[in-house]
Amino acid sequence: MAKMTERMQELFKKVPAAVLCTATNDGSPNGVPVGAKRLIDAETVLISDQFLNKTLANMKSNPRVALTFWEGHEGYQLKGTVTIETTGPRFEETSRWIEERSTQSGNPLKCKGVVILKIDEIYGVAPGPGAGKKLS
Amino acid sequence: MAKMTERMQELFKKVPAAVLCTATNDGSPNGVPVGAKRLIDAETVLISDQFLNKTLANMKSNPRVALTFWEGHEGYQLKGTVTIETTGPRFEETSRWIEERSTQSGNPLKCKGVVILKIDEIYGVAPGPGAGKKLS
Repeated sequence: MAKMTERMQELFKKVPAAVLCTATNDGSPNGVPVGAKRLIDAETVLISDQFLNKTLANMKSNPRVALTFWEGHEGYQLKGTVTIETTGPRFEETSRWIEERSTQSGNPLKCKGVVILKIDEIYGVAPGPGAGKKLS
Repeated sequence: MAKMTERMQELFKKVPAAVLCTATNDGSPNGVPVGAKRLIDAETVLISDQFLNKTLANMKSNPRVALTFWEGHEGYQLKGTVTIETTGPRFEETSRWIEERSTQSGNPLKCKGVVILKIDEIYGVAPGPGAGKKLS
């Protein structure tokens, strides 16, 4: 397990979207922006699924993901494995959050499931000699 | 092969960074923002490598990539295969471009190689019912 620092958590909350990178078991990569994201704690991230398609199929057969986010010249990549929940309190709570948030914006959406990422490793992705350096 | 529309090309040039998603042959995904990017033509993209590390190792053994970029609620994913050039006119020209661009910003950088992506497929990644739809 790896823990996000306070600064990483701040940036994660601040950016409008992160990129969720997945792959098929035989190595065909995929990456999509995800905006409906939350921190559960310093080592656990929740992503709400409204529209995931290839990404969802990839995660079901290969739960390893990389979640990359950045702003300007600061950025991080969270690596770990995911589980998908389509029932239970985290799913119910997220469903209400997505319904409220999307109804307010005039474009009602429905949560299909929640992706729970347990962080195993954290890397820097800022440009510079430290790019790709393991931070945690 | 797939061709970017004029609008996709405009957005690609406009965004400050795209996310280059790669994977190991056994499906461990990776994604990093890349800012030094150019269009060669409607079906070919060039990325300059200053700091690629795991991404470069992945591409050398598994040349399949996804390159994702978006702004607000509009976004695209280019899928294809890459070749890496560390000599020749495209490498020389890019090296000069990176040197000029980085020297102007006060932080001189060196191009290690150029990644040439031939686009095979294009998908939409905007949120909504069309998310993940193959566009070309």
